[in-house]
Amino acid sequence: MTSPARLQELIGKQLQDLNFQAEPTTLYEPIRYMLALGGKRMRPVLLLMGTELFGGNIDAGISAATGIEVFHNFTLLHDDIMDNAPLRRTKQTVHNKWNANIAILSGDAMFVKSCELMMQVPNTALRDVLDIFHKTALEVCEGQQFDMDFEKESIVTIDSYLNMIRLKTAVLLGCSLKIGALIANASKEDAQHLYDFGVNLGLAFQLQDDVLDVYANAEKFGKQVGGDILSNKKTYLLLTALNQSTGVIKEELLQWIYQPISDDHSAAKVEAVTRIYNSLGVREQAQQRMELFYKDAFLHLSKILIDSSKKEPLRLLAESLLVREV
Amino acid sequence: MTSPARLQELIGKQLQDLNFQAEPTTLYEPIRYMLALGGKRMRPVLLLMGTELFGGNIDAGISAATGIEVFHNFTLLHDDIMDNAPLRRTKQTVHNKWNANIAILSGDAMFVKSCELMMQVPNTALRDVLDIFHKTALEVCEGQQFDMDFEKESIVTIDSYLNMIRLKTAVLLGCSLKIGALIANASKEDAQHLYDFGVNLGLAFQLQDDVLDVYANAEKFGKQVGGDILSNKKTYLLLTALNQSTGVIKEELLQWIYQPISDDHSAAKVEAVTRIYNSLGVREQAQQRMELFYKDAFLHLSKILIDSSKKEPLRLLAESLLVREV
Repeated sequence: MTSPARLQELIGKQLQDLNFQAEPTTLYEPIRYMLALGGKRMRPVLLLMGTELFGGNIDAGISAATGIEVFHNFTLLHDDIMDNAPLRRTKQTVHNKWNANIAILSGDAMFVKSCELMMQVPNTALRDVLDIFHKTALEVCEGQQFDMDFEKESIVTIDSYLNMIRLKTAVLLGCSLKIGALIANASKEDAQHLYDFGVNLGLAFQLQDDVLDVYANAEKFGKQVGGDILSNKKTYLLLTALNQSTGVIKEELLQWIYQPISDDHSAAKVEAVTRIYNSLGVREQAQQRMELFYKDAFLHLSKILIDSSKKEPLRLLAESLLVREV
Repeated sequence: MTSPARLQELIGKQLQDLNFQAEPTTLYEPIRYMLALGGKRMRPVLLLMGTELFGGNIDAGISAATGIEVFHNFTLLHDDIMDNAPLRRTKQTVHNKWNANIAILSGDAMFVKSCELMMQVPNTALRDVLDIFHKTALEVCEGQQFDMDFEKESIVTIDSYLNMIRLKTAVLLGCSLKIGALIANASKEDAQHLYDFGVNLGLAFQLQDDVLDVYANAEKFGKQVGGDILSNKKTYLLLTALNQSTGVIKEELLQWIYQPISDDHSAAKVEAVTRIYNSLGVREQAQQRMELFYKDAFLHLSKILIDSSKKEPLRLLAESLLVREV
């Protein structure tokens, strides 16, 4: 099995070597810029690990792996326009550096490119790979739309939230792994278990993100703590707190949400909302839910009919990504 | 051969019956709205005519035909955002009726849907169909970007302009016909000739549009005459006039272009620029160019190695679309 670090490197090289027309530069420069911003390349790494899990060769999966990363970056590029995000990975977003029109069109072209790359798989796998790829791509659009819808809705249930994060982020992890498996001719059942492993892992990661945003050691994780609280983002924590609080606690929570907050009071807001979270035990509830998804993920991994030792790299990767100590 | 009118009807039905998830409605309603705006359905009609030309069955091509129409509408939807267009077919554009974010995401989802539909072709044709589809989709993005770039450039050559309209509109007509041919197992050579027929036809149509915008009988064509002149659109006519005018005529032309025009003076501008066009004979030059493309189109059609009588419906359609008398 090739190490994740080595796979990352291979994918980085592929992305760098992607062949685009010279012109129009206003279309292709933003694409190169976006792909060079870096990242963990988690999805293509998972895809290639899926291929190797079933004895497949990396060469057979490298194009599809590159395609899934280009697709992922296309969704980030368009999401950044919709979220009006100024920065990505500390660099200017494409719509900010160029303009929204260029970002829309470069994103579209990236999507085409990802399709082109995705079809470079063995004939035996082609239709199944495209089926899961298209299904997932549509789900990612649905997830992003639900996310935007939720911003405007006063009541969002926990189930709706979990469905949204499943669509917006988790299914693409499952899809990456499944495509890898299909390329290596895994059985339908095994490919599906690997998919479910990925989706459950994705759900666990997202809940972890929600928790870390409030409870992480800022220096350790390099993130501003409380960003979600300040932006009133409807996370698992906030939705649970809204659900379970009553009386004066609920009133205080709603006041912090609806009241415009100046910079001077932002620390007070983070402190107060965190105190409410603590009083309700929402962190523990989120972690319990996360552990459930995590357990489900490993249950699906265990059901795959291959030697357990071959699953070790995936198990290690999943464990390394889950932070139990914050 | 099935008549174009009957093909239009079939495609309309397919578009109406397209299956989408119920939710999120904010994603799928704009798609249904966009697809219900109507239109000539020229691209899917050409695709199915391409299939029938080589003895293929409409059933084998109907999914891909629907896919090409969904793709075309996706490009229109995103173009409308970029062009800030308030109306399409006298109805509100999607970004105007909903908002830009919804229009971006609905467009993305339409593109996914078009890919899903496009792969429903016989296995023998699958890779070739996807190859030309992806190649064309990327070219359409390039064409739109060149078009936006040209708005900001002071000098645009006729060759650049022809390349832009080839990418932005003509290749999709060629692509539609070629996909139809591939589905019916046409030889590579025949499929390529049919492609070239479509591209040249597309170029001829675009030049015709440029001419009609200035010289059409307004009542007969239901278009406002002179819209391109008023918006300083860099058409074949304007670029030729800028190229060939000198001295006082050039000065007058540039003055009309750079001077902001109030509603009171718009008729005067159209009249004056048309007079300059007439003095330079740019209309005749555009028509000559158009005839060349038209001739090239028919040359490629004639090279296809099948009985000439079978080509009659395509010939008739092409002739019906070309307006010689304005």
